Amino acid sequence: MSGTKLKSVLSSFSQVPGELKPLPSDRRSLDDSCVRLHTTENPFPMPEVVMQSAIAALEQQYLYPEHDNIGLREAAADAYDLTKDQVIAGNGSSELLGLIYRAFLAPGDSVAMLSPGFSFNRKLAMLQGAQILEFGCGQSDVLPVEELLSGPAEGAKFILLANPNNPTGTFVSVADIERLAAQSDRLIVLDEAYVDFAPDNGLRLIDHYPNILLLRTFSKSYAAAGIRIGFGFGHPEIIGRLRNIQNVFNMNVIGHAVGVSILAHRDAYEENHRHIKQERERVSVALSQLGFSVTPSHANFLLARVPAGQDGRWWQKALKRRKVLVAAFPESFLKKHIRVSIGTREQMDILLSEASEILGRPKQ
Amino acid sequence: MSGTKLKSVLSSFSQVPGELKPLPSDRRSLDDSCVRLHTTENPFPMPEVVMQSAIAALEQQYLYPEHDNIGLREAAADAYDLTKDQVIAGNGSSELLGLIYRAFLAPGDSVAMLSPGFSFNRKLAMLQGAQILEFGCGQSDVLPVEELLSGPAEGAKFILLANPNNPTGTFVSVADIERLAAQSDRLIVLDEAYVDFAPDNGLRLIDHYPNILLLRTFSKSYAAAGIRIGFGFGHPEIIGRLRNIQNVFNMNVIGHAVGVSILAHRDAYEENHRHIKQERERVSVALSQLGFSVTPSHANFLLARVPAGQDGRWWQKALKRRKVLVAAFPESFLKKHIRVSIGTREQMDILLSEASEILGRPKQ
Repeated sequence: MSGTKLKSVLSSFSQVPGELKPLPSDRRSLDDSCVRLHTTENPFPMPEVVMQSAIAALEQQYLYPEHDNIGLREAAADAYDLTKDQVIAGNGSSELLGLIYRAFLAPGDSVAMLSPGFSFNRKLAMLQGAQILEFGCGQSDVLPVEELLSGPAEGAKFILLANPNNPTGTFVSVADIERLAAQSDRLIVLDEAYVDFAPDNGLRLIDHYPNILLLRTFSKSYAAAGIRIGFGFGHPEIIGRLRNIQNVFNMNVIGHAVGVSILAHRDAYEENHRHIKQERERVSVALSQLGFSVTPSHANFLLARVPAGQDGRWWQKALKRRKVLVAAFPESFLKKHIRVSIGTREQMDILLSEASEILGRPKQ
Repeated sequence: MSGTKLKSVLSSFSQVPGELKPLPSDRRSLDDSCVRLHTTENPFPMPEVVMQSAIAALEQQYLYPEHDNIGLREAAADAYDLTKDQVIAGNGSSELLGLIYRAFLAPGDSVAMLSPGFSFNRKLAMLQGAQILEFGCGQSDVLPVEELLSGPAEGAKFILLANPNNPTGTFVSVADIERLAAQSDRLIVLDEAYVDFAPDNGLRLIDHYPNILLLRTFSKSYAAAGIRIGFGFGHPEIIGRLRNIQNVFNMNVIGHAVGVSILAHRDAYEENHRHIKQERERVSVALSQLGFSVTPSHANFLLARVPAGQDGRWWQKALKRRKVLVAAFPESFLKKHIRVSIGTREQMDILLSEASEILGRPKQ
């Protein structure tokens, strides 16, 4: 009876765009003994001052979070020299990406994205009944401005650029992005998740181009992936459209407190960023010496083509057996690659040592 | 130039349902010297064991939260005698309400809700291009089953019941809800935000009626409004539809840790619940003696019709001048009412004392 009733209940609903089926739910294989280099986390503790602000916020656990993230948005506006109406705060930039797709796309619309890009976008587009047009230029350091201005991308509702790009770590010049913004009337969503590890950023474009919507996250350069803190910066009218469809109380009191405290103590992370950039160069050279071909990276990870004879999945499995987790990719043009996050020196030494052994060389 | 460009950028987007305009952003008037009785918060500290689990989670701040909230969903399934596929975990039940509207409503659809109800639903319906049909029976302890089975509510895509209801605090029998679920093939969203202060609950219906989707929150009875922890319980296929459109990493590591710890230590909150129920009766009697007409409540708040001569807004302002915050309502049939949360004994004594003074009686 329950089955018939369920069918009857479900039959009353209009078709929602996209194929809806329950997700499989796998427990995270959080094996504490593994070296986690597969999710671009930044494995350093919070500065003590940030930790103390989080603990203080825990004492306010019974109060509803501040309305509209106002204190956090003001703190971000101060830190980045914007007004608070140019800022939206998200439960990670993943929440903001979801809002962007819902605010700006209708079924049948399309989005242009450099390929390879962050695969989460495909799911967001699918849920909106929209389509991702991928442009295979994301492994280069040159933005294909003309291709994005005309040709197949011309009909896209917005253009999604990640700079530095994931999983390649490549960085295109801000001047190229500015040229695209100047010549196009389309919205450009510029995801700068990894920009604190890069030589430049697009923040200065916000005041001049109402079609640039910049995303930032504290998951990578501020080592707070578990807290979920993201920002969108853009024209007040674009930002207002996103804020208007954002759910109430999207961040908790800990997210607010940690976000405000990080913004006030960004200098406490400079050593962390310096370490990651230095380690990135050291590991890049060492992997090259082992026969990997490493894409020059401006992020906190390296995309490496594995030595001839095996593919990325093989290396991922071989390293996993040795308790080192790295990312591999389903896309055919990335089949020979792995992506390795930059962690502590000790973690990177373990990676290099295990990779040497896999290649039959003496442990480094 | 920027204005013209903005217009051009915006003109490319399809109309999104609902009127989209930026929200005003007011700073929360968190005057620490005020007695906050306006938002149904539960002003008691976390048990020490829950606090310690939150602090331990802060040390994991750099790790992404567990995928699909799996550990928290399993803990809730254990605690409430369900399977994990019958459970979705949300960043507060407000996130889950948003998912329900998106998963089950298309533009032009309608929802039936008992009136007065939680006003947030009107915004969610508007964003989906849907309509709320309100039924003016929410001040009664009897569910209008026949009215919901036929008549104007018949075309609604789902029925939204809050039990206990907000802002009335009234509670309808679970037998009435079961009768509605048995006789209707429509989805019934049963919001039990305040049910831990009531004499019964609808949990036992989940296994028998695939059209019941039950919502719970830890904001009220577990004093964690600032952490954002909510649950939806229902048929795996209904729950799966919601999980499939839910954004990744919707809760942070603190939400997971506090949620799991509360579930493991629910007995530590029994004294809190006993206090609130006792205080509710004491304040109800005292307000009645002052000339208020108090609706019998099964929640952690009281809806009180103010003494003749003034309205709810007047009382709200008069109490605010004396640093006591209470809720008043715009709806015409609630114009004479205020809603008062049940807090500590000291907070309630201040309320009663200030109300006495406002009425020209000696301070109690």
